[in-house]
Amino acid sequence: MSEMVKIAVDAMGGDNSPKKVIDGIIHNHLSNDNNYYKIFGDKNKIESLIDTKVNIKNYEIINTFNKVNSEDSPLEAAKRGKDTSMWLAIESVKNKESDIVISAGNTGALLVISKLNLKMIENIDKPALSALWPNKKGMSVVLDLGANVECSSKNLFDFSIMGASLYRSLYFDIPNLALLNIGSEELKGNEIIKETFKILNDKQIKDFNFSGYIEGDKLMNGDVNVIVSDGFTGNVALKTAEGTANFITNELKNALGGNLIGKFTSLLNYSNLKKFKKRLDPRLYNGAIFIGLDSPVVKSHGGIDFIGFSNSLDVCSRIIKGNLIEKIKNNI
Amino acid sequence: MSEMVKIAVDAMGGDNSPKKVIDGIIHNHLSNDNNYYKIFGDKNKIESLIDTKVNIKNYEIINTFNKVNSEDSPLEAAKRGKDTSMWLAIESVKNKESDIVISAGNTGALLVISKLNLKMIENIDKPALSALWPNKKGMSVVLDLGANVECSSKNLFDFSIMGASLYRSLYFDIPNLALLNIGSEELKGNEIIKETFKILNDKQIKDFNFSGYIEGDKLMNGDVNVIVSDGFTGNVALKTAEGTANFITNELKNALGGNLIGKFTSLLNYSNLKKFKKRLDPRLYNGAIFIGLDSPVVKSHGGIDFIGFSNSLDVCSRIIKGNLIEKIKNNI
Repeated sequence: MSEMVKIAVDAMGGDNSPKKVIDGIIHNHLSNDNNYYKIFGDKNKIESLIDTKVNIKNYEIINTFNKVNSEDSPLEAAKRGKDTSMWLAIESVKNKESDIVISAGNTGALLVISKLNLKMIENIDKPALSALWPNKKGMSVVLDLGANVECSSKNLFDFSIMGASLYRSLYFDIPNLALLNIGSEELKGNEIIKETFKILNDKQIKDFNFSGYIEGDKLMNGDVNVIVSDGFTGNVALKTAEGTANFITNELKNALGGNLIGKFTSLLNYSNLKKFKKRLDPRLYNGAIFIGLDSPVVKSHGGIDFIGFSNSLDVCSRIIKGNLIEKIKNNI
Repeated sequence: MSEMVKIAVDAMGGDNSPKKVIDGIIHNHLSNDNNYYKIFGDKNKIESLIDTKVNIKNYEIINTFNKVNSEDSPLEAAKRGKDTSMWLAIESVKNKESDIVISAGNTGALLVISKLNLKMIENIDKPALSALWPNKKGMSVVLDLGANVECSSKNLFDFSIMGASLYRSLYFDIPNLALLNIGSEELKGNEIIKETFKILNDKQIKDFNFSGYIEGDKLMNGDVNVIVSDGFTGNVALKTAEGTANFITNELKNALGGNLIGKFTSLLNYSNLKKFKKRLDPRLYNGAIFIGLDSPVVKSHGGIDFIGFSNSLDVCSRIIKGNLIEKIKNNI
């Protein structure tokens, strides 16, 4: 690769920051020396953490004096002013000094401050929060996950374009795309979904294969790569999947760890159980991508560790190399 | 117990019927001789299956000549006429010859034929489809699961009364009740949910403790016993949980069965894995309960085996002994 991908990093958001964020950068740098990190945060702390572990050609630190707190309301966060690490990281994208911005901080604040600073892509009405979701065959893109509680068919159409473009930027493949619904027959669902079905069916966009509706129990089959929904339903689906996964793995842990035989066989079976755990490791699909603004904004999970943060940095660089924004503009 | 619970059973619905249904009755009869089964279906077949395995005092067979097919649309099913086993079973409840009706057949048809035959409970605007859902501490009641795509705050209020009454009928305890939403703060969600929050908060119904909002990832914590939602969101949540559970147990099976060590330790760990499987056995929370009509209608899953069907017969008798309909009428 020739040109570097410039990533504006808010180092002060999320649990255990800036240490987690800087360790993530160090880890990411090991496998990718084509990323340039513009790090916004407490310079003294960051310098001592980064030490000599990242090549000086690959980063700079912009000292900031204020930060958004996790308990701030979006409005409070915005009012906190333009000298927070989050605001300044976003502004660096606005000023074209960075290609993309990432934060593990307060989600609501990140969305609001991004919307205040960055322009919408022309002809997109609302930005959407998307995420990667594991399935039998790989990963799907799901959106919207809560940025928009109520959506029109135009919004859902926009989300389709954006979601397909994101999938193509990340995986270089034409995705199958479906609308999340409560039945697979054309007549099921609410009016907005039926309208969107008709639009997608009529327009026959080349960038994805429209597969119609998908039900909740099929989300993880891997037959569909992009799943489109309003933000209310998408958020409930994602969180329910998360809760179910936690519930089941806990039940399994209790069953296997509950007595000596369980403990012994779990030990024997260590590598198999590790394979299982690795397949479902939430660090692999950490975070969310806010799309629809003229630069993508990446949200890493606040509670994730440095490996998860490093994976989100990878997503940042793949989004830029994959020309996500260009792809959306060409299709909308 | 003194009086018998009279259950109208549609014997011809679901996979592998009537055998599955009759085996379910035989199994149910073993532990409960207080149930009386009015069995609607092909008399010859049923007689040879039931043989002498159920006390003659506990059942009768009503011969029927027609049945609803699984692929019938609800309208087709209703048009199929009044001589199907499903229609006649429902009619027997309408005529007060049975206390409750159960079918493993076509869900849409069951809902429509029930609505055609049975009256609504006074002051309830729409009936709802509810189900049991496992959690860390036991079972929750969740509704609506797809009978009503769009719901008003009055509908969600009705569902709250009905869901709490169902929980109390089954578990003899005052439940904690919450609205499924995308955040736990009072300001989150759409207008209808916020209105419902206000109504439930103001009315302070004695039959449940109103716990506010619940998010998808908390559904299985067991802190909330009744979860209320519109039918679209509820259906997506239930099916997503189902899909996630299948996905994870498949991944686990692949990991544990993939090599000799996995197979060997799974064998050693047989009883622990069995405990795990039992805890998540879908037969334990089989089916759905359609409430809001002046008699409850129980839908057993079409693909479940006779043990699952027998569990649903248990639910029928607990609903009647728990005076579900009385409880709803007293609170609405």
